[in-house]
Amino acid sequence: MLVETQSVQFDSLTLDCGVTLSPVDCAYETYGELNSARSNAILIEHAFSGDAHAAGISRDGGKPGWWDNMIGPGKGFDTNKYFVICSNVIGGCRGTTGPGSINPATGKRWGVSFPGITVSDMVRLQKKLIDHLGIKRLLSASGGSMGGMQVLEWAVAYPDSIASAIPIASTARHSAMQIAFNEVGRQAVMFDPNWNGGDYYDQQLPGRGLSVARMVGHITYMSDESMREKFGRRLREREKPGFDFASADYEVESYLRYRGSQFVDRFDANSYLYITKAMDYFDLSLGYPSLGASLERATARFLVVSFTSDWLYPTYQSLEIVNALRGRNRDVAFCELPSNYGHDAFLVEVGEQSEMVRGFLAQTLKQVSA
Amino acid sequence: MLVETQSVQFDSLTLDCGVTLSPVDCAYETYGELNSARSNAILIEHAFSGDAHAAGISRDGGKPGWWDNMIGPGKGFDTNKYFVICSNVIGGCRGTTGPGSINPATGKRWGVSFPGITVSDMVRLQKKLIDHLGIKRLLSASGGSMGGMQVLEWAVAYPDSIASAIPIASTARHSAMQIAFNEVGRQAVMFDPNWNGGDYYDQQLPGRGLSVARMVGHITYMSDESMREKFGRRLREREKPGFDFASADYEVESYLRYRGSQFVDRFDANSYLYITKAMDYFDLSLGYPSLGASLERATARFLVVSFTSDWLYPTYQSLEIVNALRGRNRDVAFCELPSNYGHDAFLVEVGEQSEMVRGFLAQTLKQVSA
Repeated sequence: MLVETQSVQFDSLTLDCGVTLSPVDCAYETYGELNSARSNAILIEHAFSGDAHAAGISRDGGKPGWWDNMIGPGKGFDTNKYFVICSNVIGGCRGTTGPGSINPATGKRWGVSFPGITVSDMVRLQKKLIDHLGIKRLLSASGGSMGGMQVLEWAVAYPDSIASAIPIASTARHSAMQIAFNEVGRQAVMFDPNWNGGDYYDQQLPGRGLSVARMVGHITYMSDESMREKFGRRLREREKPGFDFASADYEVESYLRYRGSQFVDRFDANSYLYITKAMDYFDLSLGYPSLGASLERATARFLVVSFTSDWLYPTYQSLEIVNALRGRNRDVAFCELPSNYGHDAFLVEVGEQSEMVRGFLAQTLKQVSA
Repeated sequence: MLVETQSVQFDSLTLDCGVTLSPVDCAYETYGELNSARSNAILIEHAFSGDAHAAGISRDGGKPGWWDNMIGPGKGFDTNKYFVICSNVIGGCRGTTGPGSINPATGKRWGVSFPGITVSDMVRLQKKLIDHLGIKRLLSASGGSMGGMQVLEWAVAYPDSIASAIPIASTARHSAMQIAFNEVGRQAVMFDPNWNGGDYYDQQLPGRGLSVARMVGHITYMSDESMREKFGRRLREREKPGFDFASADYEVESYLRYRGSQFVDRFDANSYLYITKAMDYFDLSLGYPSLGASLERATARFLVVSFTSDWLYPTYQSLEIVNALRGRNRDVAFCELPSNYGHDAFLVEVGEQSEMVRGFLAQTLKQVSA
């Protein structure tokens, strides 16, 4: 399945902070065919560092999509049955307008003069995309981590436009620990002298800071157990510790350094700042007396999924959503899947997850068609 | 209890890496009185960022010691009964020789030309101090985190010189995750341009990098639950998020920034590198067929303590020590204490911990005197 990222430009997008961006580009991909009733569309929402390339092999670059093991013919999101859409979020750096885009008013890149964005802004842009594609109501929206936050926002912001919602390894609001890890990453980026107040696009990038930020991130995406299994205390190309600081002693150090430096090549440091802030600001209950009161607006059926070893988005956060939905008599299924992979599980542990999703979507399609 | 840090200079110390340091300064404090039989001495081992000032109020500065709630008249380590000693580790920056000391051969500070150090080197210097104080056999050694590693090393390296051992919230070897968090901190320090290859003592300090390293550390010392209780999603001096990056939105961000910058004032970045490496290198089983084989050398009685919410040094690491000791028929008591404070628990959750220590020391003294 060779795929290409497409782009659509909208006249404007008004953000929660009050600023109206004009125009706004939105990068997206689609897989499968929209049926004549336009009733089989599923929106996939990417996590913090994801992009529109969720599935298939990129015609430009040859890389598989970030959720290719979940999306495709016969897979959990079966493209023989469903029309699957994925778009890059507002504030991103992979085709959709963000801090690295040109500000039309100045002819220069926005940098940190780009307006602050929220998860609700991300979803508002996606609604424009769905309208543009001629879809009145999504069969489903699904995503893990920050993707799950967007799913929740969809269900509450556009209840009539979404028949089902599958938030995975996610939360209705960041905890103090989640905010704390994001803040460490932001400080690492901004402490890099090359960040230069966000104005670095035509010079040396703040790669050191962004790399440290990503290293922290990677630890939180794994679990103690998966790290013990994958690396243990294995030394890296040496018989004994080197008593130096330049080269990596242990495999785990080498892995983190590699993943950190790799990230710098594909992600914009300012997008890192904007998107982590959007995650921290997200609170589905904001403007409502309670989480239950906000979720009462939702009419979609829910499948909520968490993973046993995910300590970054622990099961209790999924249960908070489930309990609020149950308290408002909403249709909600919940499953905590066993996995050692930590938060990464939603990306790699796709066996049972695919089964859960497949059955849930079939049931939703039946109800929608009835 | 007003106290003063003392210092003793030894002719030399030969390190595991083969280098002999000469001379070597060792900063230490003592509390209580050594009895005439010299049988009531307890060595307290500090954690990564600790120092010799474990108890009492510093005559110079007025600050209480880092374990003042555990050490003093009537406390867990009762200075009415015991003679308590605490010294700063080799490689440190609080009075004992370290990378910030002057290299006598050059007349300049060592920086990263300082030789690599190990937990075993730390203990070898402490043995010199104990000999200097005229103590043949310690009644006990105790410490949390890296302090616990030194306790284990004492029991195996000098079995005849230690009657009991109390490693708390510790491990016989760092896991991949523990190495990973340390590596993030080291990278943050070394990525700071002011680190300048370790040569910064007469100029701007690498404060940004060290601050980020400390922020990461602080998250790992707390628990998800203690952070929710202490900070939750409370905003810092504002009604709603600021949509900027300069000031802290949330209390937890402000707290981490403060603790990060505070650390820079009292800790040397090169000591950060050397001591975290020593922790990562530590493996009590090294040079033995197994952990049990190394612990078979120990003749001390053990009290091993862990805390329920400590995810950095989880209970399974303490149990690994306990099981190895039991397998060699050694005298070992184990207790997992309930606490929400995470790894910090050994510093703050002193109620039950004091009781455990008090009883264990009394029993040890009885056996030693019999």
